[in-house]
Amino acid sequence: MKIEKLQGLIAAPFTPMDKSGALNLEMVPVLAGSLVKNRVKGAFICGSTGEGVSLTFDEKKQVFSAWGKQASPDLKVIALVGGTSVSEARQLALHAQECGHFGISLVAPYYFQAANVAQLVRFCADVAEVVPQMPFYFYHIPVLSGCYFSMYEFLLEAEDKIPNLAGIKYTQEDLMDFSLCLQFKDQKYDLLWGRDECLLAAMAMGAKGGVGSTYNYAAPLYHRLMEAFETGDMEKAQHLQNESIAFIRFLGKYGGIGTGKAFMKLVGLDCGEFRTPVKNLSAGQLEALRRDLENIGFFDYCSKV
Amino acid sequence: MKIEKLQGLIAAPFTPMDKSGALNLEMVPVLAGSLVKNRVKGAFICGSTGEGVSLTFDEKKQVFSAWGKQASPDLKVIALVGGTSVSEARQLALHAQECGHFGISLVAPYYFQAANVAQLVRFCADVAEVVPQMPFYFYHIPVLSGCYFSMYEFLLEAEDKIPNLAGIKYTQEDLMDFSLCLQFKDQKYDLLWGRDECLLAAMAMGAKGGVGSTYNYAAPLYHRLMEAFETGDMEKAQHLQNESIAFIRFLGKYGGIGTGKAFMKLVGLDCGEFRTPVKNLSAGQLEALRRDLENIGFFDYCSKV
Amino acid sequence: MKIEKLQGLIAAPFTPMDKSGALNLEMVPVLAGSLVKNRVKGAFICGSTGEGVSLTFDEKKQVFSAWGKQASPDLKVIALVGGTSVSEARQLALHAQECGHFGISLVAPYYFQAANVAQLVRFCADVAEVVPQMPFYFYHIPVLSGCYFSMYEFLLEAEDKIPNLAGIKYTQEDLMDFSLCLQFKDQKYDLLWGRDECLLAAMAMGAKGGVGSTYNYAAPLYHRLMEAFETGDMEKAQHLQNESIAFIRFLGKYGGIGTGKAFMKLVGLDCGEFRTPVKNLSAGQLEALRRDLENIGFFDYCSKV
Amino acid sequence: MKIEKLQGLIAAPFTPMDKSGALNLEMVPVLAGSLVKNRVKGAFICGSTGEGVSLTFDEKKQVFSAWGKQASPDLKVIALVGGTSVSEARQLALHAQECGHFGISLVAPYYFQAANVAQLVRFCADVAEVVPQMPFYFYHIPVLSGCYFSMYEFLLEAEDKIPNLAGIKYTQEDLMDFSLCLQFKDQKYDLLWGRDECLLAAMAMGAKGGVGSTYNYAAPLYHRLMEAFETGDMEKAQHLQNESIAFIRFLGKYGGIGTGKAFMKLVGLDCGEFRTPVKNLSAGQLEALRRDLENIGFFDYCSKV
Repeated sequence: MKIEKLQGLIAAPFTPMDKSGALNLEMVPVLAGSLVKNRVKGAFICGSTGEGVSLTFDEKKQVFSAWGKQASPDLKVIALVGGTSVSEARQLALHAQECGHFGISLVAPYYFQAANVAQLVRFCADVAEVVPQMPFYFYHIPVLSGCYFSMYEFLLEAEDKIPNLAGIKYTQEDLMDFSLCLQFKDQKYDLLWGRDECLLAAMAMGAKGGVGSTYNYAAPLYHRLMEAFETGDMEKAQHLQNESIAFIRFLGKYGGIGTGKAFMKLVGLDCGEFRTPVKNLSAGQLEALRRDLENIGFFDYCSKV
Repeated sequence: MKIEKLQGLIAAPFTPMDKSGALNLEMVPVLAGSLVKNRVKGAFICGSTGEGVSLTFDEKKQVFSAWGKQASPDLKVIALVGGTSVSEARQLALHAQECGHFGISLVAPYYFQAANVAQLVRFCADVAEVVPQMPFYFYHIPVLSGCYFSMYEFLLEAEDKIPNLAGIKYTQEDLMDFSLCLQFKDQKYDLLWGRDECLLAAMAMGAKGGVGSTYNYAAPLYHRLMEAFETGDMEKAQHLQNESIAFIRFLGKYGGIGTGKAFMKLVGLDCGEFRTPVKNLSAGQLEALRRDLENIGFFDYCSKV
Repeated sequence: MKIEKLQGLIAAPFTPMDKSGALNLEMVPVLAGSLVKNRVKGAFICGSTGEGVSLTFDEKKQVFSAWGKQASPDLKVIALVGGTSVSEARQLALHAQECGHFGISLVAPYYFQAANVAQLVRFCADVAEVVPQMPFYFYHIPVLSGCYFSMYEFLLEAEDKIPNLAGIKYTQEDLMDFSLCLQFKDQKYDLLWGRDECLLAAMAMGAKGGVGSTYNYAAPLYHRLMEAFETGDMEKAQHLQNESIAFIRFLGKYGGIGTGKAFMKLVGLDCGEFRTPVKNLSAGQLEALRRDLENIGFFDYCSKV
Repeated sequence: MKIEKLQGLIAAPFTPMDKSGALNLEMVPVLAGSLVKNRVKGAFICGSTGEGVSLTFDEKKQVFSAWGKQASPDLKVIALVGGTSVSEARQLALHAQECGHFGISLVAPYYFQAANVAQLVRFCADVAEVVPQMPFYFYHIPVLSGCYFSMYEFLLEAEDKIPNLAGIKYTQEDLMDFSLCLQFKDQKYDLLWGRDECLLAAMAMGAKGGVGSTYNYAAPLYHRLMEAFETGDMEKAQHLQNESIAFIRFLGKYGGIGTGKAFMKLVGLDCGEFRTPVKNLSAGQLEALRRDLENIGFFDYCSKV
C-alpha cells in the first residue's frame, strides 16, 4: 500500500451529546463544517477525546455513519475501532469502510496488556487484515493504555505483518523514539504527533502534522505557529506555542479531559458533557474558565464556528 | 437490602471456546457440573478469568444466558457487567437479571480512570440502580484496572449511594484495607478474597470465602485447607497453602493468565484458548506443564470432572 | 554459618534527636530499656524508621556505638549499613562489628537500581563479605527502594554468593513470595515480617516474628496477639490485629512516617522530630492525635516506659 | 542575586576510577582539558553520570577539590551536593565554595520522598542557605529520584524561599512544564536541558543550553547541531540530532548508564568502570560497541582528547 502522509492538523472531535447524555448527531455536520472552515484536514473520531470507550457498540456505529457523511478529500475521517475485543474491532473496521472513512486506528489493549511487542502486533494485525485497502494507524497513548512499548520496536515487528500499516498517532513525549519512527526506512511511515502543547518541539524533530483535541477549537493559532516555523521565525513560533500552553494549562486547572467540552461550549460548539467516569465542569467553573480564557486573549485566536 | 454473605469457594469460570476461537457454550453445563460436584458455591462469570473484555457485547449476553440456566441456590451466578461504557453495563445488568443470576459486579473503569472515589461510586451507582433487587459487588483488581483507591474509602462513599451494594471481590494484597472493609459497620458487607495463593492469610484476618480461578480446577485442595483452618490445625493449613502455591507458581513460569486454560485441559475440562492479546501455551509447553504438575502431585488434589 | 532464627518482636527504633535536630544519644539507653521491659527481642537500627538516610556518615557511626552499648542476648542489635555507596556500607559493617552488633542489613540501592537480581546480589555480597561472621539480612522494602525483585529469586541467586546470608526483613505484602522464602530449602532462612498491620496474616502463613516501628510503642498489644494465635484463639487474635489497625490508620491520617515520632512523644519517649524531607506533626496535630488515640483506648495497651 | 545564564554545552563528567575501582584523580585535568578543547563551557560533577551516590563522603570532597583546580571562567564547575542527608549536603556545599566552584545543585530526596512541593523546597532551602553567594540549581531527574512534581510549581514555591536559586537542570521530557519554567517571570531563571537525544526539540521551545553525559565525548556534533539551528537550517539540525540518536541508542543496547564509560574508553579518555550496582560492558561488548560506532561513523564527530 502506498502511504499517503497526512500533513497539517487533524482534530480528534468530541462526540456530541444532548442534555440527557444521549448522542446528538445533528451536531456532527456543524463540527465538520467548523473543521473545514478552520483548515483542519481530518477527523480522528471515537478516540480518547471522542469518548469511544464510553459509547456502546451501536452508538459507535452511529457515530461512524454520521462522520462518514462528512468525509471528503478535504476532511479525512479516521475511526478508532478498539476496544479490547478483537471481534468488535473487526466489525467496526468493516463498518468504517462502508461509511467511507479514510483509515482506521487501534489502541493497545488496556485491560489485559499485550505480553510483548509481538503480541501487540498480532492483536493489531487481526484487526487490520479485515480492511486491507484502508490505512491502519496504531494509536500510541501509554498514559491511558498502559502500553509503554517502544514504537520503533513496534515498526520493526509490524512492517511485515501489517501490510496496510500507514503510521502511528504518537501521544507520548519520547522524542527519541518518535524520531526513530520518523526516520524508519527512509521515512516510510506517517507519524502524527499527539501532544498539542509541544507541537513545535515535534516539528523541530521532523513532524509534519499533529492530531489533537485543541485543534477542534484553536486551529488558527496552530496554523500561525506552523507557518512561523516553516518560514524560520522561531521566536514567533515559540511565542505562539506559549500561547497554546497558556490555555492548555486550564485543562489541568479545571480537572482534565472533561474541560475540553467546556472549551467547545465557550466557542459556540456545544457538545454536551463527558460521560462518567470523566468529571465535567460545574456552571460556576465554566464561567471561571471563560474569564480565565478572556484574560489570556484566547478568543482572539480560537476556531470560527 | 438484606445482605446474604457468600461463604466458601466461588469460581471465576473460564469462558469456553472452540478450536476456531468462537464460544463453545455446550461446555457450560459441564463446567457447572464440575463446580457443583466439587462443592464450589458460585460462579463469577465474565471477569478477568472469564475474558469478559475480549467478548463482544452479544457474546457476553450469550454467556450470561448459558450460565443462567445453571444457576441454582447451590450455584450462585454473579456476572461482571463492565466495561467502560455505563450504557452497555446497564443493559448487561438487566440481562443478568432476566437470566436469573444472583448478583452483578463491576470493575473500575480502566481507560479513563475515575478522578476520585466519588466519581468511581457514581459510575457504579449508575449501573447498580437498574437492578435494585440484585446484590451489587464491586470488583477491586487494581493490577488490571489501574484503580488503586482504598476500598474502605469506597464503602464510606458508597454506603448511601448504592442501596444494593453487597460487598467487594477484593483482588489485591492490602490486608489492612481488606480488614477495615471486613469490619465496616459491624461486618455489614460481604468481602470475597481474590488471591487464591494466600487465602489462608485472608482467613486469618477474617475472610469467610474467596473468588478465584484456581477453584475451577483445584477446589478439593482449598476445601481441605479451609477445614484445617476451621479446626485450628494451622500447620496442615499452611502445608496445603504451600501446595497451592506450588502449582500457582507455574502460572508465572508459563506466562500468566493464559496458563489457566492449560490447567483446564489437563484436568479434562477443555475450554480452548484465550483470545489475543493473552498468550497461550504451545503444545510443547502444555506437555512441560503436565510433567511439572505430575512432579508436585497436583493431580491428586485437583477437581473432579 | 548456622542461622539463628529470631522469634518474636524486633523494633525498628527511631533515632532520637534534640530540639535543634542534632542527635540525642542519651535517649538510646532509655529506648533500649523500654524495649527490654516490653519483651522486644531486638533493635533494627538506622533503617527507615531510624532515618538512616538522613544521618551523616559520622552520625551513623555514633548511633551504632550508642546502640552497641545496649546490645545483649536479650536485645540483639542489627544495623542497616546502606546506603548507595558500597564503600561506606563496608566501613559501616566493620563498625557494627566493632560495636558488638548481632547482625547487619542492607537495602537495595535506591538511586541507580540494580539491573537484575544478580547485580543486586553482587551489591550485597560486596558488603556482606567484610563481616563474614555476622548474620546478613537483606532489607526488602520496595515502596521506598523501588526494587521489586522476587525475594525467592534473590535467595536462589544469593545462597551460594553470600555465605553469611541469614534472612530477609520483608516489608512488602506479597505473601506468596514470602511463603516461598519461608519454605526455601527446608526453612533455611530467617524471614522477618515487616508489616505490623497484618502480622497475623503473616503468622498464618508461617512467620515467627516481625520487625516494625509500632513495636516501639505498642509491643504489649502484639504480644497478646501472638499469644492468642499460638493458643488457637483466632477470634481474639483478629480482634487484636484490628486494634492495631485502628491506631496504624492514624499514621496515614496525620501524614505518614513522621507520625511515628509523635506516637513516641505521647507514650513518654520523646525522640524529637524527623528531619526533612519528612513532614512532622504540628502542635495542634499532636493534640488531635492524642485525642484520637484516647478515643480508641490506645493508651491501655501501649508500651511501658 | 543576578542570574548568569549558562549557554551552550555543559558536560556531566564521569568520575575517573582506576582498575581497582578507586578514584583516579589524575585523569581530572585530562578530562577538563578535553572539555575546554571541545568548547564545553562547564562541568556538572558528581551527578548521575558522575556517580555521586556511589562515592563516599570523603571521596566526593576529593573529587570536588580536583575539579576545583580546573575551574575557570571558561569551565564553570557545578557540584551536585546531595544526597539524602541535609547535613552532608550542607557540608559539601561549603566545600564546593572553598574549592572555587561556580554553583551547587541538589536532587530531590530519593529514599523518603518529599511529601509535597513545599517540603521539597524546604529541603533545598536548608542546603542552599549555607552558600548564599553561589547559584543554586535544582536537578530534576524524576526517573532516578522518583520525584515527579511540576517544576513550574517548584519555581512558584521556591522563588521567595531560595534567594540564590539560579535555575533547573531539567532531565525529563515534559516540554510544557519546561516551557512554563523557561518563561517564568520574564525568563528569570536558567533552564538547562538534560536530554541530549532531543536537544533540538528543547531549543525549538527556547532552550539555550544543555547538560548531559554525551557532551563528554561527542561535543563537536552538538556544536554543529546548535549552529545549524541558530542559522535556521532545520534540515541539517535534524540530521545531526538523528546522528546523535544513532549512537545514544547503543546506551540502551548495551545496558544503560554503564555504557557511558565504555564510550570514554573508545575516545581515549579511560575513566575505568562504574561501581555496583551499575553494570559495565564485558571486553567482548566493548569491542562490539566499537564496531557499532565505526559503522555509524561516530568517530568522525567525537570529541578530541
